[in-house]
Amino acid sequence: MTSTSTPIALTPFQPGDTTGQPSAAQSTGGLPPQTVHIDLGDRSYPILIGPGLLDDAATFAACPKAAQALIVTNVTVGLLYAQRLVRNISPLYKQVDVLALPDGEAYKDQATLNLIYDRLLGSTADRKTVLYALGGGVVGDMTGFAAACYMRGVPFVQVPTTLLSQVDSSVGGKTAINHPLGKNMIGAFYQPQQVVCDLSALSTLPDRELSAGLAEVIKYGPIADMVFFDWIETHLPALMARDPQALATAVRRSCEIKAWVVGQDEKEGGIRAILNFGHTFGHAIEAGLGYGEWLHGEAVGCGMVMAARLSQRMGHVDDAFVQRLTRLVQAAGLPVVGPDLGADRYLQLMRGDKKSEGGDIKFVLIGDAPLVSGGQGPGVAVTAKAPEAVVREVLAASVV
Amino acid sequence: MTSTSTPIALTPFQPGDTTGQPSAAQSTGGLPPQTVHIDLGDRSYPILIGPGLLDDAATFAACPKAAQALIVTNVTVGLLYAQRLVRNISPLYKQVDVLALPDGEAYKDQATLNLIYDRLLGSTADRKTVLYALGGGVVGDMTGFAAACYMRGVPFVQVPTTLLSQVDSSVGGKTAINHPLGKNMIGAFYQPQQVVCDLSALSTLPDRELSAGLAEVIKYGPIADMVFFDWIETHLPALMARDPQALATAVRRSCEIKAWVVGQDEKEGGIRAILNFGHTFGHAIEAGLGYGEWLHGEAVGCGMVMAARLSQRMGHVDDAFVQRLTRLVQAAGLPVVGPDLGADRYLQLMRGDKKSEGGDIKFVLIGDAPLVSGGQGPGVAVTAKAPEAVVREVLAASVV
Repeated sequence: MTSTSTPIALTPFQPGDTTGQPSAAQSTGGLPPQTVHIDLGDRSYPILIGPGLLDDAATFAACPKAAQALIVTNVTVGLLYAQRLVRNISPLYKQVDVLALPDGEAYKDQATLNLIYDRLLGSTADRKTVLYALGGGVVGDMTGFAAACYMRGVPFVQVPTTLLSQVDSSVGGKTAINHPLGKNMIGAFYQPQQVVCDLSALSTLPDRELSAGLAEVIKYGPIADMVFFDWIETHLPALMARDPQALATAVRRSCEIKAWVVGQDEKEGGIRAILNFGHTFGHAIEAGLGYGEWLHGEAVGCGMVMAARLSQRMGHVDDAFVQRLTRLVQAAGLPVVGPDLGADRYLQLMRGDKKSEGGDIKFVLIGDAPLVSGGQGPGVAVTAKAPEAVVREVLAASVV
Repeated sequence: MTSTSTPIALTPFQPGDTTGQPSAAQSTGGLPPQTVHIDLGDRSYPILIGPGLLDDAATFAACPKAAQALIVTNVTVGLLYAQRLVRNISPLYKQVDVLALPDGEAYKDQATLNLIYDRLLGSTADRKTVLYALGGGVVGDMTGFAAACYMRGVPFVQVPTTLLSQVDSSVGGKTAINHPLGKNMIGAFYQPQQVVCDLSALSTLPDRELSAGLAEVIKYGPIADMVFFDWIETHLPALMARDPQALATAVRRSCEIKAWVVGQDEKEGGIRAILNFGHTFGHAIEAGLGYGEWLHGEAVGCGMVMAARLSQRMGHVDDAFVQRLTRLVQAAGLPVVGPDLGADRYLQLMRGDKKSEGGDIKFVLIGDAPLVSGGQGPGVAVTAKAPEAVVREVLAASVV
């Protein structure tokens, strides 16, 4: 078992903290913008969080200047927001192009990635060209990976427009595409120059995608901050109703926890693996059903319930917490029972997980290992192997 | 013009320096192995240079251990050397696989890169799996790029078997594949764990590839070390005859100069660009003719003559040096006149070069800019724009 305890303390959760510039607050509907910093030495960058950021040229004033910029988006998000982004970054570039990819996880593949390279090379984009990822996790992961590889690296800016990408995938520099044999198997650690989380973009998000994003918000509780978990339980109705203040708090706190983890372990040599709570089971669900059948957040929601159940059987948390998490995931509009792929298929897919080593599946378990003899319960996480028989028990108890 | 002068001095050339372990010398035919260090902090690594290294398990003793290793090679080199490498790294791994790619620059593409990913995923290779690149520049560049991207990065070891890859492409962490619209356009900076230059492998190298490698050896003179250039001129017959001592000196000094440059500028923010002397014209030749028609080293040889001529017309070197370089390139069995692609096509291709910015082609020019008023001549290099009319004059004087 790998301990992921660390001496660097996470700043306590402050639900009412809305520090910001009063002048900016006036121009953005009352909620002041907030900034969370990712601290990675010369790869550090800010995450700007607030309503109306896409409509304000000042948001992008610190982005890298160059001859060209390319906005990569998808056909759905592009129709809604691309022209606003073009308008507000135009002062920085001689030429701003827009490339709209097909929408969906099924297109997070090599063929679609090549469309980005073809466009860049077709317009003689140089190594100072700046890429803007405007969309959800698929657009962000692919654009980031294209930025990492085009001419061995050009700068890029994340402009996440879904809750899931604002609280998770746009932050921390993980970029990737899928391979038919596994999710996110081909990629790079490559940090953006800036992340812009415009909370107003969440107003156009389909309910199903809002729920998917809440899965990653909920995730931060059991792995790092049970005070935040309590807050999510209390404020779930407000979050589901897209209350601006509640969303601002959820996005900000999620980014703070992610920044705390990534700042300690950029390339997942240790603690960063805890961010994959629910993802070992979740990735198996996504791959087993075919990418795009379930949304990533839906698979993670269900995967968290499975991983909590495994944690319970391994003595890390009690059954009451498993029930509590299950209720919250369900209340967020997410599935809590998995598709019946068959236990063998689940195990085969999970053995291909990136955390596996030498054929052993590694799971993220929540709670103190010695809980049975008086630990703290959830709020901490570890990566660990689990006996196959126990995993099979969990699968038997968790699928339709 | 970007100055590439630097306060860090290059260690003087010592042609007779053959320091090494006497005991190792006995087992490798009299020439002791030498080590050049690439100093990049936590990404530092050694380059081992000597005869018979592939036949000695001790060569690989410090390579990363894991459950699996994959040797990537090509069908030509694999037949000659793969089994020796398998034998000598087997103590480190439970499983060692070999993947032989088709041979040639024409296969340095996305489709061939996918063969590496498919093999890794098909054998459930985990993120500790070690890749070994056994072959020339194409194998090294592709394997390195696959290592950079598979699961966002696995360790790899370079085992270059051509002169060109031993003196240049295997050292310094540039990895890439070609795109139909440009050479090395998709890639990553990703450092190996170790580089193993077995000089004995050069005995099976076709003459044409030996000459191609000499182009990159010659390159180091005008950009950094005219004492080495003098030595190459004197020892060219010995190098062409594959004299082991002469090859050992050429490989070691080339790696020393490359280590000195890369150690100052890993990601080519400045001085590293001087390593591209001859490559702006050379890449245009390769792309214009179709990859693989001319060997990379042949295109660089001819490209250096063109770049020297441009340097002369820009007042950096005198005509006598252009003639001297031309004679040496020709004596090394390399072309000194370019294919007649037409000046417009040359310019179009060069505008797509990675050094270009905002449509301006940047060239690596040798010699002091103020040579006309008494500079040092070649042995230093700068990157600079050049008037199109002058570039056209150079092309008119340089093609068949």
